[in-house]
Amino acid sequence: MTPSPIKTVGVIGTGVIGASWTALFLSKGLKVIATDPAPDAEVKLLEYLQKNGSSVPKSKLTTSSFLENLKFVRDLDPYLGEIDLIQENGPERVDFKRRLFAHLDANTPGHVLIASSSSGLPSSAFITKCKNNPSRILIGHPFNPPHLVPLVEVVPHPGTSDAYVTAACEFYRDLDKDPVVVKKETPGFIANRLQAAVCSEAYSLVSRGVVSAEDLDKTMTSGLGLRWALSGPIMTNTLGGGGNFSHFMNHLGPALKTWLDDMHQNSFNFDSQEAVNDLKDKVNGWVSTIDLKEVESNRDAFLSSLVKDKLGSSGAKTDR
Amino acid sequence: MTPSPIKTVGVIGTGVIGASWTALFLSKGLKVIATDPAPDAEVKLLEYLQKNGSSVPKSKLTTSSFLENLKFVRDLDPYLGEIDLIQENGPERVDFKRRLFAHLDANTPGHVLIASSSSGLPSSAFITKCKNNPSRILIGHPFNPPHLVPLVEVVPHPGTSDAYVTAACEFYRDLDKDPVVVKKETPGFIANRLQAAVCSEAYSLVSRGVVSAEDLDKTMTSGLGLRWALSGPIMTNTLGGGGNFSHFMNHLGPALKTWLDDMHQNSFNFDSQEAVNDLKDKVNGWVSTIDLKEVESNRDAFLSSLVKDKLGSSGAKTDR
Repeated sequence: MTPSPIKTVGVIGTGVIGASWTALFLSKGLKVIATDPAPDAEVKLLEYLQKNGSSVPKSKLTTSSFLENLKFVRDLDPYLGEIDLIQENGPERVDFKRRLFAHLDANTPGHVLIASSSSGLPSSAFITKCKNNPSRILIGHPFNPPHLVPLVEVVPHPGTSDAYVTAACEFYRDLDKDPVVVKKETPGFIANRLQAAVCSEAYSLVSRGVVSAEDLDKTMTSGLGLRWALSGPIMTNTLGGGGNFSHFMNHLGPALKTWLDDMHQNSFNFDSQEAVNDLKDKVNGWVSTIDLKEVESNRDAFLSSLVKDKLGSSGAKTDR
Repeated sequence: MTPSPIKTVGVIGTGVIGASWTALFLSKGLKVIATDPAPDAEVKLLEYLQKNGSSVPKSKLTTSSFLENLKFVRDLDPYLGEIDLIQENGPERVDFKRRLFAHLDANTPGHVLIASSSSGLPSSAFITKCKNNPSRILIGHPFNPPHLVPLVEVVPHPGTSDAYVTAACEFYRDLDKDPVVVKKETPGFIANRLQAAVCSEAYSLVSRGVVSAEDLDKTMTSGLGLRWALSGPIMTNTLGGGGNFSHFMNHLGPALKTWLDDMHQNSFNFDSQEAVNDLKDKVNGWVSTIDLKEVESNRDAFLSSLVKDKLGSSGAKTDR
């Protein structure tokens, strides 16, 4: 069985992640059939789309046509034959996903790609009852919010066929996303592991009083993060080595090792309630002085314009 | 003794970092007296300034006046009485810096702030022979390139007076930089530690074949880095907890801990020549296919425009 061309996407679960995926899919001209059991799900989804639909980079739609391609349904089953790809965003519970995926696998044509947005569960944990074609199941983990941030982690399970990994990457790339392939199922995949590495050291530095929470964040937003938005850690090392990664490793590897040893010796103790409480106090002392709603909406607006700039586009074609 | 208003800066060492500082200082309307013992230092500095001078965000100068305020001298000693602040960018050798700082401390008026760009040596290591006023000596560690990236890590030694920490922060802030105060001398300060945390995990993931070097970098540039350019790790956690850091820690702390434990068990072995060589091969297999000069110049151009956008300015007033 080979993947099909994708025109209609089924979105299961329309919370924050599912709604954001829906905004992306619709903006790129795809049809979406969405479902969610919450009583107010449809109303909330429409609100989300009205608010965020126009900020999708490189949108292909005008505002007026934005919602024409959306169908919200209580029960997806009657529509499973019309769907070319499923993006699942249900709760992160293995028993729930096992039942859901067994049902989807049994009731969709065998060539339909089924992607889960799961950030925590590897798909090998929940395909155990899929008897039809589990080789078309994989993780397509977005970075929040999916309608703005290009990254998608594509994580096959050991039985996922290469054709479906390739098809998933092509599908996401056609939506102006940047898929990366996580070749082995690994806790936290890639992004959450890199994020945990930074957070752990950040917590240690703030809780030990080396730097304030505000200045810790500034170190990222006014320095490291600016550079990392444009060149990744490996390329940054390579450029830092005069265009030669080996040169960088030979000359700066030892310093890196010294810092890492010191970090390890002073690592944040997640098991100490005292350390955790002290960190919370220090952070809350800072963030309680800030209008977080404003921070978040400014960030998302800037993020949208940054991604548009990176895509080399003047942005959405909507008139809003 | 109190810090003086700063109109004239002495720049010691005009390699890449010193030249970039000089571009910044001149663009903000300061006078610069620069020195460097290399035979071609003056020519190289002028070349650097011609090439990069116009990209400083929020420049106050027109191109024609750009170089009027620069004086390059072979010997700084006759000018030490005219200088209000020294930004030192000499070699990272403790014996060298000890002699240099003893000389500067003995021969400049006691109120003059002396900042070292050192990334590796804490100032307590090289003020040991300063008898005049070591309380005006501190680290002002920039993030490369200083004329573009706002971050400066201000690191006092235990005897630096608070007045000079404040004065250094005000000085850098007046240049549209974002100073952060590293309250305790710590190996790698803040930025290099956070960077080491990411690099260490990146090396592990690439060398273990979990992800390609290219996709590792993409995880940063298309995801994590974009967000970190706009909100730091602590604020990102807080927003992720619905505006509540404690909520984030209570709910996601355990997952973070699980990932960190797995990372620790699989940490990159810097001492294994085999692991290091394998990593170099994997990285070089990717970067050897890329025009690095183009990557670097595109990055710097984008960095300049990103910083200008963040500063809310349409940019430099130069006509270039």
